[in-house]
Amino acid sequence: MKRRLWSIREHGFVPDKQLHHETIFTIGNGYLGTRGSFEEGFEGDTPATLLHGIYDHAPNVLVPELVNIPNWLPIGITVDGTPFKLITKTTDTLRPPHGYVLGYERELHLDEAVLRREILFRAASGNIVRLIFDRIASLDNPHILAQRVRVIAVDGNPTVELTAALDGQVTNAGVAHWLPNMHVQAAGNTIGLEATTQQSGYIVGLASTLLCASPVTASLTDNLRPTLSTSVKLQQEQEAVFDKITCIYSSRDVDAPLQAAAENLANAAQLGYDALYKAHVREWAQYWDRSDITIEGDDACQVAIRFTTYHVLITAPRTDENVSIGAKTLSGLGYKGHVFWDTELFALPPMTLTQPHLARNLLMYRYHRLSGARHKAKANGYEGAMFPWESTDTGEETTPQWSDPEPDGTRIRIWTGDSEQHISTDVAYGAWQYWQWTGDNEFLARYGAELILDTAVFWGSRVEEKNERYEISQQIGPDEYHENIDNSVFTNRMVVWHLETALHLLDWLRANATTDYERLVNELDLSDTRLNRWRDIITRMYIPFDETKQIHVQFPGFFDMEYIPVPNYQPRTTSVQAILGHSRSIQTQVIKQADVVMLMALLGEQLAPLDVLRNNWDTYYPRTDHGSSLSPATHAWVGARLGLMDEAYDMFYHAAHIDLEDNKGNVKDGIHAAACGGVFQAVLFGFCGLHIREDGTLAIDARLPEHWRRVRFSVNYRGQRYTFDVQNPVLVSPMA
Amino acid sequence: MKRRLWSIREHGFVPDKQLHHETIFTIGNGYLGTRGSFEEGFEGDTPATLLHGIYDHAPNVLVPELVNIPNWLPIGITVDGTPFKLITKTTDTLRPPHGYVLGYERELHLDEAVLRREILFRAASGNIVRLIFDRIASLDNPHILAQRVRVIAVDGNPTVELTAALDGQVTNAGVAHWLPNMHVQAAGNTIGLEATTQQSGYIVGLASTLLCASPVTASLTDNLRPTLSTSVKLQQEQEAVFDKITCIYSSRDVDAPLQAAAENLANAAQLGYDALYKAHVREWAQYWDRSDITIEGDDACQVAIRFTTYHVLITAPRTDENVSIGAKTLSGLGYKGHVFWDTELFALPPMTLTQPHLARNLLMYRYHRLSGARHKAKANGYEGAMFPWESTDTGEETTPQWSDPEPDGTRIRIWTGDSEQHISTDVAYGAWQYWQWTGDNEFLARYGAELILDTAVFWGSRVEEKNERYEISQQIGPDEYHENIDNSVFTNRMVVWHLETALHLLDWLRANATTDYERLVNELDLSDTRLNRWRDIITRMYIPFDETKQIHVQFPGFFDMEYIPVPNYQPRTTSVQAILGHSRSIQTQVIKQADVVMLMALLGEQLAPLDVLRNNWDTYYPRTDHGSSLSPATHAWVGARLGLMDEAYDMFYHAAHIDLEDNKGNVKDGIHAAACGGVFQAVLFGFCGLHIREDGTLAIDARLPEHWRRVRFSVNYRGQRYTFDVQNPVLVSPMA
Repeated sequence: MKRRLWSIREHGFVPDKQLHHETIFTIGNGYLGTRGSFEEGFEGDTPATLLHGIYDHAPNVLVPELVNIPNWLPIGITVDGTPFKLITKTTDTLRPPHGYVLGYERELHLDEAVLRREILFRAASGNIVRLIFDRIASLDNPHILAQRVRVIAVDGNPTVELTAALDGQVTNAGVAHWLPNMHVQAAGNTIGLEATTQQSGYIVGLASTLLCASPVTASLTDNLRPTLSTSVKLQQEQEAVFDKITCIYSSRDVDAPLQAAAENLANAAQLGYDALYKAHVREWAQYWDRSDITIEGDDACQVAIRFTTYHVLITAPRTDENVSIGAKTLSGLGYKGHVFWDTELFALPPMTLTQPHLARNLLMYRYHRLSGARHKAKANGYEGAMFPWESTDTGEETTPQWSDPEPDGTRIRIWTGDSEQHISTDVAYGAWQYWQWTGDNEFLARYGAELILDTAVFWGSRVEEKNERYEISQQIGPDEYHENIDNSVFTNRMVVWHLETALHLLDWLRANATTDYERLVNELDLSDTRLNRWRDIITRMYIPFDETKQIHVQFPGFFDMEYIPVPNYQPRTTSVQAILGHSRSIQTQVIKQADVVMLMALLGEQLAPLDVLRNNWDTYYPRTDHGSSLSPATHAWVGARLGLMDEAYDMFYHAAHIDLEDNKGNVKDGIHAAACGGVFQAVLFGFCGLHIREDGTLAIDARLPEHWRRVRFSVNYRGQRYTFDVQNPVLVSPMA
Repeated sequence: MKRRLWSIREHGFVPDKQLHHETIFTIGNGYLGTRGSFEEGFEGDTPATLLHGIYDHAPNVLVPELVNIPNWLPIGITVDGTPFKLITKTTDTLRPPHGYVLGYERELHLDEAVLRREILFRAASGNIVRLIFDRIASLDNPHILAQRVRVIAVDGNPTVELTAALDGQVTNAGVAHWLPNMHVQAAGNTIGLEATTQQSGYIVGLASTLLCASPVTASLTDNLRPTLSTSVKLQQEQEAVFDKITCIYSSRDVDAPLQAAAENLANAAQLGYDALYKAHVREWAQYWDRSDITIEGDDACQVAIRFTTYHVLITAPRTDENVSIGAKTLSGLGYKGHVFWDTELFALPPMTLTQPHLARNLLMYRYHRLSGARHKAKANGYEGAMFPWESTDTGEETTPQWSDPEPDGTRIRIWTGDSEQHISTDVAYGAWQYWQWTGDNEFLARYGAELILDTAVFWGSRVEEKNERYEISQQIGPDEYHENIDNSVFTNRMVVWHLETALHLLDWLRANATTDYERLVNELDLSDTRLNRWRDIITRMYIPFDETKQIHVQFPGFFDMEYIPVPNYQPRTTSVQAILGHSRSIQTQVIKQADVVMLMALLGEQLAPLDVLRNNWDTYYPRTDHGSSLSPATHAWVGARLGLMDEAYDMFYHAAHIDLEDNKGNVKDGIHAAACGGVFQAVLFGFCGLHIREDGTLAIDARLPEHWRRVRFSVNYRGQRYTFDVQNPVLVSPMA
């Protein structure tokens, strides 16, 4: 009975939902992610395996993208000569001409991170087999992928032929990234393939073996598809087990990827599937022990939050400081694997609070890309470090300047790479939050401080002194419907926070890490003049505020535009922007996502007294169309803090189910990483009100949805584990 | 937040699921049921309204069927001339040539029994409206149906035209049942239609009116579709409300149905929608107060059991003693509205225990059809009353002798009408159970006793004395895969129970209702000779039992047939019988449904000691393919009693979701009434172990699924209400 709250299930194959399910059934281990495509393939499928850090910039594409590597999944099966496929229509199930699927079930077991598919298949011969496909991406050894296929003769004595292949004929939705002259090998019961990206020159090597009772032969009939084959005749009720073990290395790991893959594969094959599986599950038990959140009284949200936690964990790099999490994780090609603010403000906090070693890796990714950020600042005429809105391996700005063309050829100019400059503060926020929770002074002094300070240097050079105050023109805030506006209250206010934090940090460094203090003051030129300017900016920054209405103003002029009663636009499966059309909607008060409300999430009562926060909510909530997946979770968080439990729960449910329910039909492009991290924050910071008191102790200030009985979670705070058991009516038992 | 456990929701319109959803979104009030078809229609839809008791036997159809009456749903809307339809595809949502649905949501609110549909629709003009459709079948006045349509101008100032019609052009999937010369009328703001069935001569009359702020005109352009029309120009954000009230009577209620409908309609229109709705909800509050079961710790099953309870309640006749519940309720055309054992052994107990006045009606239906049962007994050469396997208005046997033809023209002989004779005992069981729970002595003496005794008379004449014992040949037990077998252990053993009960009843009558005792002894010829024969049958009935294995044998010879490992046939969406084919499967040990296990459910430890019951389970459970929807709930019940909680929960989940998940694709034909009643019994008799002690007090012996925290329910026992609060770990608080 346990599995009901620990698994995602698909009953019966629905071809129309294939791409959605490929995404949600992705497996991964922080090194790679593989979509839930079928081993035998299916018309219109989009199999993809993405390795962190393997980007390539193809000709005629505006920007580099994460590369779909050769496919390690292929396993083909014939039963009495009938190829197994997801054939669900036939005129005669007893004598199907091309085979027939009598039943289909798929289940992603979140606890053990195994994807299992079970099928009852009738061959043209009339014989029936039961097929069970398991696959894991080992969390114990991230280079190892293991598949197990069990074939049970249910009726009759079928002959089963099985092939296991590696497939080099892969593209990113038609865009070729691999040099055509791959190295392919096949010998004994092992096959291998090595490929090199065209522009970036990354090499990946894959090796596979097939372990089973029947003899295996390797062959190379197709140059890009080395194949292993075997065959067995089964007696009724007999079961045959086939284990395909695959090993993957890239030139980011070793010099000779295929060789490393082949060697590591030999060791893995020696261990065998069961031992590999056991080690994988052992690691997952630790992951869940640290990161699981239990919600009693709401089964749907319990499963959903395990699902979102799973997707955060499978995409989190475990040992690599030079990669980060893309907006769509490693589960799809959406946003080309680029890294946005989604990482620092949404995906990072779950790791910061529950598995800080993972959070550290992500921040180090930014640290190692300071040169790219400095390059961007310089190119734009600023000082310090200005992080790119979209980031890849190089750390350079990789936001495309134009959208993909519409059917009529129109492209829209994308301004985010130019104007969504708050990313630099978001990175700093992530680093500061990491330090506050972990107390990792070594990280702060050696790396984090430089992130926070050099981005502060950027802002010091970026702000404009005019109208007897400081302003920032030509910005895009979180609400991306309104582009190149002046004085985004989100950006301006966060810059104040940023500079305050930078000064605070300098005090800390001076007192606690003198060497690093001196190094940074020198290297970043943190002169008194500069610091005094920061202090002046803090005092005189323009924070748009309407004194009459006692609300923050998203940006001056916002309320002069057309008002649209967003709540009337229900039900809908698309944004109000799409309903109004781009050219009209940008002239209205429709907001894409939490903007002032995001500011409230980050700063809480530091921003303003509660009544102003409530005024802000009442103003902006009915103007927001949640056109971004980042919006609902943020509203859940803030709504809970304001005691608006119905709205908070509606938003939370929505956020937690964005990928499971796919109401907008875009999950085929990948998991919404930010929404996954957002639901974590909505529960801990929003509903449970977890916070650090001024005296440095942890505290809970819970407002749970009425029907939730209990929320339990653990956090790692300054090196110690704290487990909270928050009950409804509110009763908190913190256990150190 | 409350609605999450009180509603069934559909997000986005999926044409492929239209027919399934029409069934589960059925509304009803015990007088009629109306499928959840759209007001404006949609390609391939199957709207149907079924009135209890209105059967008709069409030419060239083997048996009579419940008749689809004229459709009261039609409401058509145009927005700026664009007809509103569920158009979900367009090349340009901003300029759709035929309108475009921007969003769709439907929700059946179980608490208030209202079906609500919300749609955001863009007309070709570009104007956008929000449409909200509500409909109820009044539980307060079952002749009244009310629809409310709200149209909100979301963007622009649209002109909205609305028509409301009655549609006489209806068939039962192509089979015509109505005389073509219907009486149709249209005048003022009222329309009416009266129609007569061809063979049976039933008359139904419908009258509708449209209440709204704009002027209404009635017209009759099409002879079978009287129509009301109105039109309104809306300003942006303005809302228009249209209430269509319909009244239905049949010649089963009154002599002049249309006249009665028109009169009653006038009163209802006077009250108006809000008052009608309020009265409806008030009645539903009482229904739920009596019949709701709360399950804490399992949201999916909580919603599912409210859904099954809802469907039992909407089909239960409230005041009519001459109708009963068909196997598919009033929600679809499946099984032609015929009444099976499903009623007495599955659908009846929820009413017996929670709303006994409804149970009494159903038993009175059988009482009033004793003449049909006597006729069947006589025609077959037996004495007493032999109830038909399938029953309609007449009480005659209406089981078709042949199946509907396969694509190649083959028909299969259906033997159940000849051989599934246990129905007579099932009716007796239902009557006896009713009396045990209600203590309704008046019912027992005047009506129930005759049901139990005259069917006992039948069995006394039916059994065969041979091989020095009593046998019953040519039977079909609950396992309908094995036809015309001799000595079904289910049937033979239940006949023993039946005769024992009859003798016990006679003792009671003699002591407590002398007049009725004497009347029945005379009328049914309950001579000493007859009663002595009953006693002899009880003693010497052949109960197939394997002494070595210590199991009941479903019927002699069962274990000589081919053994099929049913558990290997997973996953599947059809029965193992369908997979093996009819001709092969009847020669195997594959069992359709609980048979020996059903016997265990009904008799418990009266049947055998626990170890034998467990042996029976271990033998029959892995041979059962649950090809009938009656099977899983019965297994849940018995599994829980045996402490097999994993199996019991699996079966329960399956039973509770048969109609919601539609795994077999047959819900389009209607709700599975027996499964609905079965889940009630699985919870109360199975998991909670509710039973009447020998001393006449109620007791609980709970074994709840591990994750259930609490089950609460009320039962009516001998005129008093008892509320049970069963907690896990087991703690019972019975509150009188």
